[in-house]
Amino acid sequence: MENFAFYNPVKILFGKGQIANIAAEIPTEAKILVTYGGGSIKTNGVYEQVKAALAGHDFLEFGGIEPNPHLETLLKAVELIRTEGINFLLAVGGGSVLDGTKFIAAAVNFEGDPWDILAKQAPVKSALPFGTVLTLPATGSEMNTNSVVTKWETQEKLFFASPLVFPKFSVLDPETTYSLPPRQIGNGIVDAFTHVVEQYLTYPANAPLQDRWAESILQTLIEEGPKTLANPHDYASRANVVWSATLALNGMIGTGVPQDWTTHMIGHELTALHGLDHAQTLAVVLPNTLTVRRDRKREKLLQYAERVWDLVDGDEEARIDQAIQKTRDFFESVGVRTKLSDYGVGLDVIPLITDRFEKRGFVALGEHQDVTPKVVEQILALCA
Amino acid sequence: MENFAFYNPVKILFGKGQIANIAAEIPTEAKILVTYGGGSIKTNGVYEQVKAALAGHDFLEFGGIEPNPHLETLLKAVELIRTEGINFLLAVGGGSVLDGTKFIAAAVNFEGDPWDILAKQAPVKSALPFGTVLTLPATGSEMNTNSVVTKWETQEKLFFASPLVFPKFSVLDPETTYSLPPRQIGNGIVDAFTHVVEQYLTYPANAPLQDRWAESILQTLIEEGPKTLANPHDYASRANVVWSATLALNGMIGTGVPQDWTTHMIGHELTALHGLDHAQTLAVVLPNTLTVRRDRKREKLLQYAERVWDLVDGDEEARIDQAIQKTRDFFESVGVRTKLSDYGVGLDVIPLITDRFEKRGFVALGEHQDVTPKVVEQILALCA
Repeated sequence: MENFAFYNPVKILFGKGQIANIAAEIPTEAKILVTYGGGSIKTNGVYEQVKAALAGHDFLEFGGIEPNPHLETLLKAVELIRTEGINFLLAVGGGSVLDGTKFIAAAVNFEGDPWDILAKQAPVKSALPFGTVLTLPATGSEMNTNSVVTKWETQEKLFFASPLVFPKFSVLDPETTYSLPPRQIGNGIVDAFTHVVEQYLTYPANAPLQDRWAESILQTLIEEGPKTLANPHDYASRANVVWSATLALNGMIGTGVPQDWTTHMIGHELTALHGLDHAQTLAVVLPNTLTVRRDRKREKLLQYAERVWDLVDGDEEARIDQAIQKTRDFFESVGVRTKLSDYGVGLDVIPLITDRFEKRGFVALGEHQDVTPKVVEQILALCA
Repeated sequence: MENFAFYNPVKILFGKGQIANIAAEIPTEAKILVTYGGGSIKTNGVYEQVKAALAGHDFLEFGGIEPNPHLETLLKAVELIRTEGINFLLAVGGGSVLDGTKFIAAAVNFEGDPWDILAKQAPVKSALPFGTVLTLPATGSEMNTNSVVTKWETQEKLFFASPLVFPKFSVLDPETTYSLPPRQIGNGIVDAFTHVVEQYLTYPANAPLQDRWAESILQTLIEEGPKTLANPHDYASRANVVWSATLALNGMIGTGVPQDWTTHMIGHELTALHGLDHAQTLAVVLPNTLTVRRDRKREKLLQYAERVWDLVDGDEEARIDQAIQKTRDFFESVGVRTKLSDYGVGLDVIPLITDRFEKRGFVALGEHQDVTPKVVEQILALCA
């Protein structure tokens, strides 16, 4: 096991009716900005629950945060906060609203151009406190420090992370996700699954507990994902998917082990350039990352084949092939297509992406830091 | 899954040489009291590392905190803190030093008799901040709010918990545990194993991820425990046991599931009355709790038999019998005896314990709240 530091102070309020308990988590004198997305919270009852819970608190609203939240939109919220003297944020929505709110929190007191937080990884020195009400299980943003923001003007999708943007609390009420369309649930399952694989499917690091915890999440998503798609109002399976998605990226399974993140880095470019949903890019790229990196990931691929997909017979190469194919089939089974052509994207995207990596000075990605732009090209070539 | 709140803000610094990093976690102006036990830290190099890390900080020492820390000893530390104006504690040791330091932290500003924090569960309203350097993997105290203290005068062993006694940070350097005698490592393995079972082996609650995470810890202890006993200086297996023990009781596997704790409640009395090591009491009681409660725990016992001990053939009763026997055998294999007679304790202890439970007004224990003093009697009768 490698040395590590682990710290995660997010308070989770999980279960039915938990929105009612947020008032106790917010200072009474706070002046709150409630941030949200396209307005679905106004039709599914979540907005009413939040409003009732905040009775007695002073709050304003900022809606319209889009999927892959735009810098341009978020800066409008920053202006509003400065004008109105807001000192607490409440993000109500999915990963995009949460990520966007993290950026808003960090940008309010940032000196200089806030885009530098992403483009230059400029250090965040303070952030407004905020809580979240999660309505879409997928990104894990509700229990981590990560944020991904898109600059619409230049079609760049970049991330930042800072311990200052841990949510103070996050409400996870599975019932608030009942009204999501199947596409978003399928996306969430693929996103959570890939978060686990990025932290697990690297090389053996003598960390059997982290391996087993990672495999546990994969097994649970494989088991509960199809159930919750078939019966969206079944509380138990939805709750299990929600909690799995949170634990997939709260730092716990990544303690003391190498991590990859190649698939995410490539996927972000596909979203930035062609507007694919984040999970769609992962479903396309991940199986091919595994294929191209099969020699570097060989031991863990065999372990994944055996423990997650029960593949123990036949020669090792065949088991690895089957494990990768089963991964692809699983993504398809939850409704997420796995080829670039499914989204009308051609291989002409390849030089655009490798060019971007080179321009940003990425020498190499992955757990061995040897995924060069050349390797990215090989991966994308298989994605057709 | 049941509703739950989860919150755990302890910062973990895990790995070789991490003691050197504690200074950055303690305010420079802090006046520190370093608490420790019988002095082994002065012979195994830990004391020197701590002293070097605290160079530039103002600190005093308080040694002599005994196993099952005594109220009488801890109150002396409270006096010293008040006299010297101490405002930060650093606990260096195992679960007893950590638990004792939590009590000290809570007692310093407590109005009234501090024993009421345990005996009357009087609410803790403030506590001194503290960090820990863990030198014995077992109790999980380094990442939770629990503390168990013994009043020597009356031979009572009681617990309290408060979010105010989360450590600010905990250092887990597996190398600091190399010099522990096998008895303490074996005890730690049994303690961690039993912590998991108390939160896992109850009844199905539709929480497959929590089940798998619990089973993961049990499997890792079964696999790595004997390795670390055979090769105490093998870093990898020791690191895996250390991290398993922490995660066995940091709240994560207990989210949204029923919990038992019957074995611990009975075990505390055996320690209080006869001085057995905490883990020895668990090794004696747990298999018999499972035996007496086999009908109430039937489904989870079968799951435990299959997933942890690979018992899938034969009739169900036989599988349950074997799973319980394998649990007992595992405890014996790591050097912890499993009968009261191994420790010179007779069944005359039974009325003393049930009498104590009745006097404290315990109606019933366990995940169904139906373990009455009568059931405790049945469990203890099998412990002979």
